[in-house]
Amino acid sequence: MTGRGKGQLVQVEIYGQRYTLKATKDPSWVESIAAHVDRKMREISASTPTVDSLKVAILAAVNIADEFFQLKVEGEAIEDRIAEKAEQLSDLLEESLRERGGRP
Amino acid sequence: MTGRGKGQLVQVEIYGQRYTLKATKDPSWVESIAAHVDRKMREISASTPTVDSLKVAILAAVNIADEFFQLKVEGEAIEDRIAEKAEQLSDLLEESLRERGGRP
Repeated sequence: MTGRGKGQLVQVEIYGQRYTLKATKDPSWVESIAAHVDRKMREISASTPTVDSLKVAILAAVNIADEFFQLKVEGEAIEDRIAEKAEQLSDLLEESLRERGGRP
Repeated sequence: MTGRGKGQLVQVEIYGQRYTLKATKDPSWVESIAAHVDRKMREISASTPTVDSLKVAILAAVNIADEFFQLKVEGEAIEDRIAEKAEQLSDLLEESLRERGGRP
């Protein structure tokens, strides 16, 4: 989203500073992401004894990355469960077709 | 992960600075998250004409939040598809049971 290429420029405010971000999707998407980062920084600032904005930003990035990887792990677990269920269903279907085939 | 409470302290290096983070999970989880943030900051630094570490950290946080929300939207779409398939399957099962019940 912050790279080169086509996209509308969107002005956002994060932790009291204005930034210009490139919206490759809907500008409201970028705004909600900026609001999420801003909120995280304020939460961290309120719970961490530091006045260093860089540290607050890095801890926010770490926090968001933690959420990202947790979601990824959960998604992979769901995918595994779906694959398992699909296999069980396929076995059940084959069995049912065999059973029907065996009937007069 | 950066809040108060139980957890092992882990030293990590992000963008040339050492930080002490609290690992509520495996310390290697924290290390891989820190490595992800470090990698993002270096990617942004290489593609953005800025020497401001705060800006780099905030753009990294924005970038990671973008990935997080994309994954969330994809996950929700998958959940919707699963719910739809489960309903179709349920209808199919009921129909099949009715059909069997109707046979001699």
